Amino acid sequence: MSKATNTAVKVGIIMGSQSDWPTMKEAADVLEELGVAHEVKIVSAHRTPDRLWEYGKTAVDRGLQVIIAGAGGAAHLPGMMASKTRVPVIGIPVQTRALSGVDSLYSILQMPRGFPVATMAIGAAGAKNGGLMAAGILALQDAELAARLDKWRNDLSASIADEPDRDLI
Amino acid sequence: MSKATNTAVKVGIIMGSQSDWPTMKEAADVLEELGVAHEVKIVSAHRTPDRLWEYGKTAVDRGLQVIIAGAGGAAHLPGMMASKTRVPVIGIPVQTRALSGVDSLYSILQMPRGFPVATMAIGAAGAKNGGLMAAGILALQDAELAARLDKWRNDLSASIADEPDRDLI
Amino acid sequence: MSKATNTAVKVGIIMGSQSDWPTMKEAADVLEELGVAHEVKIVSAHRTPDRLWEYGKTAVDRGLQVIIAGAGGAAHLPGMMASKTRVPVIGIPVQTRALSGVDSLYSILQMPRGFPVATMAIGAAGAKNGGLMAAGILALQDAELAARLDKWRNDLSASIADEPDRDLI
Amino acid sequence: MSKATNTAVKVGIIMGSQSDWPTMKEAADVLEELGVAHEVKIVSAHRTPDRLWEYGKTAVDRGLQVIIAGAGGAAHLPGMMASKTRVPVIGIPVQTRALSGVDSLYSILQMPRGFPVATMAIGAAGAKNGGLMAAGILALQDAELAARLDKWRNDLSASIADEPDRDLI
Amino acid sequence: MSKATNTAVKVGIIMGSQSDWPTMKEAADVLEELGVAHEVKIVSAHRTPDRLWEYGKTAVDRGLQVIIAGAGGAAHLPGMMASKTRVPVIGIPVQTRALSGVDSLYSILQMPRGFPVATMAIGAAGAKNGGLMAAGILALQDAELAARLDKWRNDLSASIADEPDRDLI
Amino acid sequence: MSKATNTAVKVGIIMGSQSDWPTMKEAADVLEELGVAHEVKIVSAHRTPDRLWEYGKTAVDRGLQVIIAGAGGAAHLPGMMASKTRVPVIGIPVQTRALSGVDSLYSILQMPRGFPVATMAIGAAGAKNGGLMAAGILALQDAELAARLDKWRNDLSASIADEPDRDLI
Amino acid sequence: MSKATNTAVKVGIIMGSQSDWPTMKEAADVLEELGVAHEVKIVSAHRTPDRLWEYGKTAVDRGLQVIIAGAGGAAHLPGMMASKTRVPVIGIPVQTRALSGVDSLYSILQMPRGFPVATMAIGAAGAKNGGLMAAGILALQDAELAARLDKWRNDLSASIADEPDRDLI
Amino acid sequence: MSKATNTAVKVGIIMGSQSDWPTMKEAADVLEELGVAHEVKIVSAHRTPDRLWEYGKTAVDRGLQVIIAGAGGAAHLPGMMASKTRVPVIGIPVQTRALSGVDSLYSILQMPRGFPVATMAIGAAGAKNGGLMAAGILALQDAELAARLDKWRNDLSASIADEPDRDLI
Repeated sequence: MSKATNTAVKVGIIMGSQSDWPTMKEAADVLEELGVAHEVKIVSAHRTPDRLWEYGKTAVDRGLQVIIAGAGGAAHLPGMMASKTRVPVIGIPVQTRALSGVDSLYSILQMPRGFPVATMAIGAAGAKNGGLMAAGILALQDAELAARLDKWRNDLSASIADEPDRDLI
Repeated sequence: MSKATNTAVKVGIIMGSQSDWPTMKEAADVLEELGVAHEVKIVSAHRTPDRLWEYGKTAVDRGLQVIIAGAGGAAHLPGMMASKTRVPVIGIPVQTRALSGVDSLYSILQMPRGFPVATMAIGAAGAKNGGLMAAGILALQDAELAARLDKWRNDLSASIADEPDRDLI
Repeated sequence: MSKATNTAVKVGIIMGSQSDWPTMKEAADVLEELGVAHEVKIVSAHRTPDRLWEYGKTAVDRGLQVIIAGAGGAAHLPGMMASKTRVPVIGIPVQTRALSGVDSLYSILQMPRGFPVATMAIGAAGAKNGGLMAAGILALQDAELAARLDKWRNDLSASIADEPDRDLI
Repeated sequence: MSKATNTAVKVGIIMGSQSDWPTMKEAADVLEELGVAHEVKIVSAHRTPDRLWEYGKTAVDRGLQVIIAGAGGAAHLPGMMASKTRVPVIGIPVQTRALSGVDSLYSILQMPRGFPVATMAIGAAGAKNGGLMAAGILALQDAELAARLDKWRNDLSASIADEPDRDLI
Repeated sequence: MSKATNTAVKVGIIMGSQSDWPTMKEAADVLEELGVAHEVKIVSAHRTPDRLWEYGKTAVDRGLQVIIAGAGGAAHLPGMMASKTRVPVIGIPVQTRALSGVDSLYSILQMPRGFPVATMAIGAAGAKNGGLMAAGILALQDAELAARLDKWRNDLSASIADEPDRDLI
Repeated sequence: MSKATNTAVKVGIIMGSQSDWPTMKEAADVLEELGVAHEVKIVSAHRTPDRLWEYGKTAVDRGLQVIIAGAGGAAHLPGMMASKTRVPVIGIPVQTRALSGVDSLYSILQMPRGFPVATMAIGAAGAKNGGLMAAGILALQDAELAARLDKWRNDLSASIADEPDRDLI
Repeated sequence: MSKATNTAVKVGIIMGSQSDWPTMKEAADVLEELGVAHEVKIVSAHRTPDRLWEYGKTAVDRGLQVIIAGAGGAAHLPGMMASKTRVPVIGIPVQTRALSGVDSLYSILQMPRGFPVATMAIGAAGAKNGGLMAAGILALQDAELAARLDKWRNDLSASIADEPDRDLI
Repeated sequence: MSKATNTAVKVGIIMGSQSDWPTMKEAADVLEELGVAHEVKIVSAHRTPDRLWEYGKTAVDRGLQVIIAGAGGAAHLPGMMASKTRVPVIGIPVQTRALSGVDSLYSILQMPRGFPVATMAIGAAGAKNGGLMAAGILALQDAELAARLDKWRNDLSASIADEPDRDLI
């Protein structure tokens, strides 16, 4: 569990393999920053399908509110998780070598009627936004988190300079 | 407002133009089926930008919990709405003529860090899943809706025949 | 079970939904033509994940030698089946509306190390070839089937006219 | 404002973030070279939407004749600016990591009827051409600039060697 | 020349072949609507290259202010025209059969440094926007046209209903 | 052999199957029009590989000067023919259902060093141009054919109207 | 022949050129690991077509059970081999420079009815999976190999950590 | 003119800019190797259109038999040259940064009926094959060149090792 909180885990960050971590780290970091309790697990759809099954079947009872799932290539993890639980699943398409993550994207995005996956942009920007989307969902029930999220967004806007620094090329 | 409920509107379904309605209708229909109060509006990012601004700025105060935004081509509506409110925005890429909705998809999906849009599949399947994702988010705070959603999912699974009907070609 | 044979089922043809049948029928037809015992089932990765689990876990014990799995969109069925059994899985990408089956293709093809899916061409040609590939695998242990397959291939070659019929436009 | 001129700013170069500057610099440089008064600003569609609104609403009154807007990914800046002002908007799709700028391109190009964006090539060549297109538009009312632009074009043509230098590999 | 005006032609609409007319008609129609004097010509880059040469070389002297050029496939007309004149060239990628106009788009868009083409969306929407972009450029020198264009834009915005007509499917 | 000539066959038009004929007919028609002796054959790379072998090995001795080969999907015919003979091979990518002929194109175009295939546009326009390219190659040794080809090109240019017929929509 | 076994060669690994070896090595390595007798050859469809013919025609008699064929670009080797023998052919699309292996993929995958190629993922992961698919096919007749393959799969699953190592970025 | 020969120039190698030379060098080198007289020129469609015009109009009279034209991006050079002369034009799509040469490819390949361009693979392999295709065309009238080309092809085939060198990774 994240050291940022001592409360119950609300968000599960899962990924297909260790190699997804540099991408998915951005989701964990922004949840940390916003003080959202979360856990980080490797759950491989193909290599550990029973772990996926177990994770999905217990998600509601464990009190998970959002699952952020990252995967690359034939990225079955987010969609299979959405099949196993009604907890909202956010999918992060990890960039790949030959197809730049378009394979990951299509595998995550093109879900059939009945099993939505909230798909984010390809790569690290998508992972960060996955964390922010999770926070936005939790903020619906948590006024303090809502305030922190509003501040985070305002700070981002305030950080934008009026003109580019012309020496940064 | 939807006639299905007499409670406050929780979900805003918005779209860029009348031509998006045949797609977006699936979102409205499944929310109706699940008894989720919603409204349906045309908000065009380019033709009615001030309407977009107003919708986004008042979303939190009006009590909206989820916004489902559908658009096609240079589909700016979902992303601009995500810029104006922290209410979770679900984006539906409407299929287009020349580029089959890949243009809509990239415009909705590839948001920069800070402003997530929960992107669904291209076209009507995506719109239906947008409605289900909205229901899943609301179900986190509404046990009765959660039960209805669980039943909806179970009914879907139970409806699948064991073998295809070989005469349906 | 197919009426063509009274022997044990060797090939399982599975598909995600009824709508895949017009495509997958070509696999069944060519196996029928070659006298290969097979069954035809609907197994949906997302709507009936437990059926998928059961099918995969019992495949070896039931004596299945090849599984032909067709699916469209975020086509998780072939890859998840490959995760659950070492019986060779042949994947058929069903053509889709917005993305022409490229989504199905990438979801089936781009499997990670450890879980191969023998991917065929998009659509009906791929389904027919899936049946032929299954027959080719079984023919390694069945000289009579090998002879029938050789004849089938020779007949196909012999059927090619020397010149096109110029009136067929 | 550019130091190249002491006259009123005619061209606004805007971009979504500092990271677009290495690309957009080519637009500024060629305007400098041609003696066209311009300003360079960061205006983020998502992070500073009110700045975008203000910029668009005041463009006519401030005497801007052309706006060159560069952005990457879900590049909403050029299109939203075109929605807010009738001043001609030139869009520059900035190259991106996963999708090479095809995402930027589609988001900028595929505008609905009513709100044209004059889209240039992806990346730095597009930015330079954006500057030249702006100069071409201004030259319609400025015979001296027209002469400078003609000379610039003639010099470019004259600089082309008859044969490649075979040692430059 | 258009019957809408009795003043000098300001805009040349050119296209590679008769088959481009159903697309390019939208450019002519909106210029007609806005009272902008224009001409409509067939100029084929490959079949009538000398006509292209002549058109380009005389454009400035004939007083053309904008050229709108539509073409499909290996669409060389807009780019070659941009090479022959400094009059701003707007390019319209006509939709094609096999490649949906992506071939037209890349041929028009990806111009090298020195010769910008203001590329619009693929197909009829792009042609209409080409007419509007031309009007926007001319409006920089014509206050009455500017007023008509502002009204056209305001009327478009005002025409957008608040909700979709649910019976229009 | 074509009835248009009584001289030796100079051009071989080959295709993978009867279904390619509606496309490849354009090559035959333009050769007929230009009076170039040709033959039309079905040669399937996969179904009649020995026929391909024989055709390639005898091409030089039979006096063939150009081979026009059309195929769709995994279109191996043009490239394999180029491997078997030094007679110039022109490849025609036939449009396909799922991938619009991009599969045919890549299979024909992306030949390794040593075995060029002169690839034409996807579909019927490419087939016609294949015939014209063959005529252009033969015209290098045949002044009368060169004159006929020059006339054909001039007639095409002369047929282009000055303005589109506005009633042809 | 592989030094790993002293039994008859069951699997032929072939590739179009030396440059495919870094990719195809993964197929050889995993067969080595699983104790499957195999050979490794260069067979170029275009440069050594007669070698391809000979290899295909003798495959059954030589006792080959599976052929794994890797190629890049206009990758004709797997499909032509499938045309020459009924021994199951597994195709490996080698990644290419300009088109990232999508050219290889389409050339291998899109086979016409009659000649299936069991296509694997683009690049090295596909080559490894090609070896595993070959092993899975052979395991249908070899209980000891089946046990080794089951163990290999179980070991892979068991190697997956519960959480990512957060220091591996 | 190439120093390799003292005979009349038969092949013109032209390219849009110096930056195309590293690609186009392969065409020059293989012509050198085969003893084919050629010249190498920069002819830019956009920057030196009059040079293009002149080159095309004099090609027949100068005795050119083949023109090899390389270009990148909106690669108009090959197609415009094909419009100006009936001398066969071979097009080489130069690889580009953002779109990997797919832009070059479509601009060169998708020519309308009447003006064929013999398109080669993207990049350096295509340039080499352009040289070989030119040699193959010239060999139709030159038995000695035909013999040299046959030898070149045989040498290539003979150079292919039987097995890959396993140490070359």
